[in-house]
Amino acid sequence: MRRPWQGQVEKPPQENVPRCDLSNPLCPGAVRANGEVNPQYMNTFVFDNDFPALQPDAPEPDACNHPLFRAASARGVCKVMCFHPWSDLTLPLMSLAEIRAVIDKWVELTVELGASYPWVQIFENKGAMMGCSNPHPHCQVWASNFLPNEAQLEDRTQRQHLQERGVPLLLEYARLEAQRKERLVVENADWLVVVPYWAVWPFQTLLLPRRHVCRLQELSDSEKDSLASIMKRLLTKYDNLFEVSFPYSMGWHGAPTGPRLGADCGHWQLHAHYYPPLLRSAAVRKFMVGYEMLAQAQRDLTPEQAAERLRALPEEHYRVRPR
Amino acid sequence: MRRPWQGQVEKPPQENVPRCDLSNPLCPGAVRANGEVNPQYMNTFVFDNDFPALQPDAPEPDACNHPLFRAASARGVCKVMCFHPWSDLTLPLMSLAEIRAVIDKWVELTVELGASYPWVQIFENKGAMMGCSNPHPHCQVWASNFLPNEAQLEDRTQRQHLQERGVPLLLEYARLEAQRKERLVVENADWLVVVPYWAVWPFQTLLLPRRHVCRLQELSDSEKDSLASIMKRLLTKYDNLFEVSFPYSMGWHGAPTGPRLGADCGHWQLHAHYYPPLLRSAAVRKFMVGYEMLAQAQRDLTPEQAAERLRALPEEHYRVRPR
Ligand SMILES: O=P(O)(O)O[C@H]1O[C@H](CO)[C@@H](O)[C@H](O)[C@H]1O
Ligand SMILES: O=P(O)(O)O[C@H]1O[C@H](CO)[C@@H](O)[C@H](O)[C@H]1O
Repeated sequence: MRRPWQGQVEKPPQENVPRCDLSNPLCPGAVRANGEVNPQYMNTFVFDNDFPALQPDAPEPDACNHPLFRAASARGVCKVMCFHPWSDLTLPLMSLAEIRAVIDKWVELTVELGASYPWVQIFENKGAMMGCSNPHPHCQVWASNFLPNEAQLEDRTQRQHLQERGVPLLLEYARLEAQRKERLVVENADWLVVVPYWAVWPFQTLLLPRRHVCRLQELSDSEKDSLASIMKRLLTKYDNLFEVSFPYSMGWHGAPTGPRLGADCGHWQLHAHYYPPLLRSAAVRKFMVGYEMLAQAQRDLTPEQAAERLRALPEEHYRVRPR
Repeated sequence: MRRPWQGQVEKPPQENVPRCDLSNPLCPGAVRANGEVNPQYMNTFVFDNDFPALQPDAPEPDACNHPLFRAASARGVCKVMCFHPWSDLTLPLMSLAEIRAVIDKWVELTVELGASYPWVQIFENKGAMMGCSNPHPHCQVWASNFLPNEAQLEDRTQRQHLQERGVPLLLEYARLEAQRKERLVVENADWLVVVPYWAVWPFQTLLLPRRHVCRLQELSDSEKDSLASIMKRLLTKYDNLFEVSFPYSMGWHGAPTGPRLGADCGHWQLHAHYYPPLLRSAAVRKFMVGYEMLAQAQRDLTPEQAAERLRALPEEHYRVRPR
């Protein structure tokens, strides 16, 4: 962390984003690439991605004739979900009721798409640094006819842990972190956020329920309210860290759905990962490059240092705080 | 690939890098952070990284008392290796003899550090986009007292393949790709470069020997010459793709060393990975973000399309070509 930095500096995010801009395809009333006009939506709004990576009718690949050349079709749907009608807001600047509406829509989409698809990936890319090309607050939901790699890995390791220790991995982990406190960032009666012991991104966090929950749709009303609250607190701290709208990719992992809705999911614990790229300031990020790609991740600061810095930050957003 | 791009655009690399700049710590005659003066080196030059991520005397972590909280010390050394005395050169613009000097130094370092360390990771981060903070042509060599994750994975999968099919994985793979040709980029009598079947970065490539070679030090003189040649051809094509000094991270993987120098390494095949970030132009990169981090990689173009584009490019560098 003490080495001089003469490398790439990141541009600050666009300031003064117009609240409503009819040339922005995510705004109420705007025309999208396919010619449809967005409704004058009041809270969230979901539509099919006009440039989907997954399609329901993807063709079967040619039959493979060698074990080293195996392929299978990947089918699914890609949806975009706007969080709010205004383009100049982000989650931490939204009210608890508005964040709650986002959570309700996440639950609804998980139920709807999870009725047939085995995996429903909700994720948010926030900030240009994270490949986001539109400042309007939104996330994506990609449902697939297969368990993606990360899902398979989490399924396997959680199953193994339950077999070996008789308690779900992330439930045991959350209890230990709640006691140890050194990697804790924020907590409330139902949830906690830690910089995980195995974090590789500088300010990576893991959002965990305190009780055993397999999927978003199992959350009670009050758990959804307390989730809105802890999200707002975490994301406010993130923005306050470098006094910038904090870029990240985040997403939810819960038990597989579709054909696996009826199967035993006792080993699964619902959780959200936050992967933010910034390291030293709003302008200097962590690069996951050479050694990280070819050998293994190495950290520039410890999870305990990261957690301590995040814990110490105020829970009032720097943009609304009286100076 | 057809979706409109309104996201982050990358800055072109610095133009007119001065050939020699005494304030650049990689130049001959410059003073480094530790006060040492670099010699007037003529081809390559190796020194200890003044800000090492690995150190030979890293302390043991506190004894862990829980299976979910396991830690071990990571010991090693980090070296920096300059490719050439001039800051305004890159490998594809160097002569074959100069590239051969780089290869010879790689061999020397693998032997020297591999005498005691089980893993010697040679890697080059090229371009600001890949976290490189100095335009002077150079790579890094990190040796560790453990097998990093990627090395462990390659060790395991190659061992399993040899057991199951009686031939080293990457030797069988190279033979098949040499026949199929659709993912081939360049080849010569000793080497071939393919966009691997499993590529995730748009123009990712894999450099493979045709015969079974475990480690860099097993290469014959003529194989080192033909390696210099194929590297120059590949990297020239890379630069020609978007007419820009092409950013990438690359690195070598060979059989483990140190205590495993005497062990059977019949399953291992030496190879180099190239991971370039650019997707559509010198300004628009691939972002490995939300879905990629949380679910799995998804490609914007197929390996066959990428290989075809690279194959079609001239082997004369755009900067030295008469227009
Ligand atoms: O050692 P450098 O070139 O300063 O640092 C670069 O390479 C390292 C190894 O891949 C990365 O950990 C750093 O994030 C990157 O900026
Ligand atoms: O779908 P978007 O937001 O245009 O695209 C973004 O997210 C995708 C899913 O993580 C990535 O594959 C793209 O590289 C990134 O730019």
